[in-house]
Amino acid sequence: MKSILAAAVALAALSPLAAQAQFAKPEDAIKYRQSAFTVMGSHFGRLGAMANGRVPFDAKVATDNANLVATLARLPGAGFGAGTETGLNTRAKPEIWKDTAKFQAAYEKMLDATSKLPAAANDPATLKTAFGAAAATCKGCHDDFRRE
Amino acid sequence: MKSILAAAVALAALSPLAAQAQFAKPEDAIKYRQSAFTVMGSHFGRLGAMANGRVPFDAKVATDNANLVATLARLPGAGFGAGTETGLNTRAKPEIWKDTAKFQAAYEKMLDATSKLPAAANDPATLKTAFGAAAATCKGCHDDFRRE
Repeated sequence: MKSILAAAVALAALSPLAAQAQFAKPEDAIKYRQSAFTVMGSHFGRLGAMANGRVPFDAKVATDNANLVATLARLPGAGFGAGTETGLNTRAKPEIWKDTAKFQAAYEKMLDATSKLPAAANDPATLKTAFGAAAATCKGCHDDFRRE
Repeated sequence: MKSILAAAVALAALSPLAAQAQFAKPEDAIKYRQSAFTVMGSHFGRLGAMANGRVPFDAKVATDNANLVATLARLPGAGFGAGTETGLNTRAKPEIWKDTAKFQAAYEKMLDATSKLPAAANDPATLKTAFGAAAATCKGCHDDFRRE
């Protein structure tokens, strides 16, 4: 899965044709990636509330949210194709397209960390550790590649 | 799954507390449901392009998109809780909250139809039929519950 996503991110970032095939216009790609992050962030937030004890732990709810986060994490990468640098008030920094390899490495760190959430979601302590590791990859990427 | 979602939709629609627990404020719920529909629509569109022969059929790509649509279809229902009738330029009609049972039935039709997509995605002909049935449930709900 990781290598498939990496290939998709690389292809989308490097080939305007590939991005065009998937999205009719650049704004569609930007809206898609923003939407995917919004939905992912919502479920990640629910997981965090449980990981950090703000809501009672429930293994079923935690697992459902962890599975959704792991699935959704794979999606927004395809929305960063060439030609999607500006538009729709994107907070994406130009560095994404200037240093695609670094962005891709950061994205893959996030994929690695989020892929571990489902297996960790059965226990509050392991969930807390796995959630923290995943949250650190979010922050790392936002610090480098997203405007405030 | 269907009954779980139906319960979630019913709960979210009837209980401001439930919606509040999941979303910090009504705008968050509206943004969440709009984002979920955007991502779902993107993957449904890719599936449709394949179902209707606009792009070459590829069982792997079709199955990936069908699985995503079936998963994403379960999400936006939770974003229609009480208090989310207006805001963020929502196109949701008041009928959603005036006739919740009818909205819920329309939502469940969509869930039924989209849940059949993964099994149908291995063959162009069965995919076309299943896609058409799912698209009809989208249109039905948009006609009744979404402003132009």
